[in-house]
Amino acid sequence: MSPPTDEQCEQARQVLLERAKAELDGMRTPGVADTMLSSASDFGRPGVEYVLRNAFEGIWARDGLEKKYRSLVVISILASTGKMAQLRSHIGIGLSNGLTEVEIREAMLHVAGYCGFPSGLDAWVRAAAPSATCEDDYE
Amino acid sequence: MSPPTDEQCEQARQVLLERAKAELDGMRTPGVADTMLSSASDFGRPGVEYVLRNAFEGIWARDGLEKKYRSLVVISILASTGKMAQLRSHIGIGLSNGLTEVEIREAMLHVAGYCGFPSGLDAWVRAAAPSATCEDDYE
Amino acid sequence: MSPPTDEQCEQARQVLLERAKAELDGMRTPGVADTMLSSASDFGRPGVEYVLRNAFEGIWARDGLEKKYRSLVVISILASTGKMAQLRSHIGIGLSNGLTEVEIREAMLHVAGYCGFPSGLDAWVRAAAPSATCEDDYE
Amino acid sequence: MSPPTDEQCEQARQVLLERAKAELDGMRTPGVADTMLSSASDFGRPGVEYVLRNAFEGIWARDGLEKKYRSLVVISILASTGKMAQLRSHIGIGLSNGLTEVEIREAMLHVAGYCGFPSGLDAWVRAAAPSATCEDDYE
Amino acid sequence: MSPPTDEQCEQARQVLLERAKAELDGMRTPGVADTMLSSASDFGRPGVEYVLRNAFEGIWARDGLEKKYRSLVVISILASTGKMAQLRSHIGIGLSNGLTEVEIREAMLHVAGYCGFPSGLDAWVRAAAPSATCEDDYE
Amino acid sequence: MSPPTDEQCEQARQVLLERAKAELDGMRTPGVADTMLSSASDFGRPGVEYVLRNAFEGIWARDGLEKKYRSLVVISILASTGKMAQLRSHIGIGLSNGLTEVEIREAMLHVAGYCGFPSGLDAWVRAAAPSATCEDDYE
Repeated sequence: MSPPTDEQCEQARQVLLERAKAELDGMRTPGVADTMLSSASDFGRPGVEYVLRNAFEGIWARDGLEKKYRSLVVISILASTGKMAQLRSHIGIGLSNGLTEVEIREAMLHVAGYCGFPSGLDAWVRAAAPSATCEDDYE
Repeated sequence: MSPPTDEQCEQARQVLLERAKAELDGMRTPGVADTMLSSASDFGRPGVEYVLRNAFEGIWARDGLEKKYRSLVVISILASTGKMAQLRSHIGIGLSNGLTEVEIREAMLHVAGYCGFPSGLDAWVRAAAPSATCEDDYE
Repeated sequence: MSPPTDEQCEQARQVLLERAKAELDGMRTPGVADTMLSSASDFGRPGVEYVLRNAFEGIWARDGLEKKYRSLVVISILASTGKMAQLRSHIGIGLSNGLTEVEIREAMLHVAGYCGFPSGLDAWVRAAAPSATCEDDYE
Repeated sequence: MSPPTDEQCEQARQVLLERAKAELDGMRTPGVADTMLSSASDFGRPGVEYVLRNAFEGIWARDGLEKKYRSLVVISILASTGKMAQLRSHIGIGLSNGLTEVEIREAMLHVAGYCGFPSGLDAWVRAAAPSATCEDDYE
Repeated sequence: MSPPTDEQCEQARQVLLERAKAELDGMRTPGVADTMLSSASDFGRPGVEYVLRNAFEGIWARDGLEKKYRSLVVISILASTGKMAQLRSHIGIGLSNGLTEVEIREAMLHVAGYCGFPSGLDAWVRAAAPSATCEDDYE
Repeated sequence: MSPPTDEQCEQARQVLLERAKAELDGMRTPGVADTMLSSASDFGRPGVEYVLRNAFEGIWARDGLEKKYRSLVVISILASTGKMAQLRSHIGIGLSNGLTEVEIREAMLHVAGYCGFPSGLDAWVRAAAPSATCEDDYE
């Protein structure tokens, strides 16, 4: 059996991207995915499509772990690896997925212990007023 | 008011260490904390005491997040930062704290996406047979 | 328009996985992708599928950069981030994609300069006899 | 023997926090620890207490290494791990603990060699006018 | 045979620095290396000399890999390790060394896959308008 | 003035390498640098020369910081960045440069606090019996 053609692959990627957009829109303001795609340059567009498709269809849309706890995992990852812009955004997503400020605070204490004081302090400073920092840069 | 004396501080640290030992023993085989402390060299002992006291009294024993989800946070942190010996141990702790293999697998998919393919593959290889890998190196 | 169904997404992912397998087989021994998938446990399988699909269909199969230089990029990334098991494998892939040992050596000098002496030395030790180290752990 | 009660642990943590505050005040402007604690939100306060207590009572107040060389260690750690806000603060602490600009410069040359050119350059840029950059973010 | 004297070593370092300056000037605006050196403080000067000498004489001036692909390697390293100021500068150098925007975009897709979504997104944001971001901070 | 020729640069690098070898031999068993160079493959040799020359002539041989405290800096860097093979070697160098086991232990406590529990524990395990672990892999 010969492998799928370029056209078949492109169609398949579009199917997954549509699903990813629905998934992201369900967690944020509807239309946010289309805005990201339409505002991307030729340079950035393939990357934005890759991330949207794989993050929101490939991972977030799966069964097996509640969205609330997917947010807890992602917030822990981003704080551990020092990705501050994305941490700000995902604290907003986490609160709308049902995490409480106390649960986020406790997760950041583990970051302070297992990744060191500065990673914890950076996270608290960024997360100090979570409801005020829900910027729209998604990953 | 003058600050606490060295002796008062030492007593306070011992109180917290006792609590930490009870916390760890409750999650693992009773006596494991004493074994770690008695087998430590003079060189390693202050460090082992520091980690036991701060990890298990200072963080794990707190309210505000269920132990099961503290394990999810710690597993996510360790996989993200490539701390494989501790990841193996904490997968064992996580299973005994009530996480399922499916929930751990899903968390590791987020690691693969947000920290890259190799971090995900390293985690799956380490976690492939979680019940077989509960070694006793705790953090 | 309603988003794609679960079944449509699963079909799309299978199309992309088939293409990824063809891409990987073309760079390695034919059948290697099937061996990876059939030997994966239930625990590891979704992760292996995710990585195969996204690495080899989503990135490696694209136009715009020769395979030889994709290998140069991936080798540089893996050496910079200390992913030694994958570095060994990708040095083998790089040689079969047309990189020379001299080109790999020069890339590792940049790693030594821009990531520090230990990262460079680790890479040279791993890469010292590249033709002997083409193990089959792919990402 | 039953483990310590919550109240006994809280008292012990307060003893250690008092000692930590005295330790930090001795290296900086008196009152700085109280300012940090009183300005923290409910969200950030447990984290600030955790860091103050463990950094300044648990580590800095110990015997066995002069404060000047504790500063040299911490500056090396922060430059290596790219924690720039804390590096700025600890260069100020290091100068007041007796390090010279030349000693800090030499340590940063090791960072440039062992962690790569960009880490060294980032550190020199941050440290270029050390006496002007003693901001009050402590860890 | 006794080792070289301090004076002989200083002369040797000056020879290599002259060569490094010629190498860097050839890739950028002539005179840029002298500007960097003359504007450095006593505190920063030994570090700037160390980096210029070792980056541009010790590595970039070598045979064995085309300058265009040295740029591809360095851009991949900097994006992987999150060194954003240097990434901006080296995208400018890469374009003048003959890389195309498409080749850089493809390399950043590998970064998104092998280092995770946030590293990729950070790189695209920094690289979105490469010709506009050629700042003069060189390593 | 035209830049130095290839031959002049090669002579300059040889001068600095001779000085580096004397510096390293002075801290370790005489002849160790020659052994490293003569046992390197064609693939690894330029990298070994680069590291020897820049580490031991370019940095370690400088004035401005005692060797004992250069060791303290390098041990702190290596523990912070998880470079375990080099950490083992540099603990041996540090002890012969005059550091005590207590000073090393205290530095590793700062690593545990500022980089997290696992980095500290990894360092203590590696450093638990320092006199037994002076292996000959130098950077």
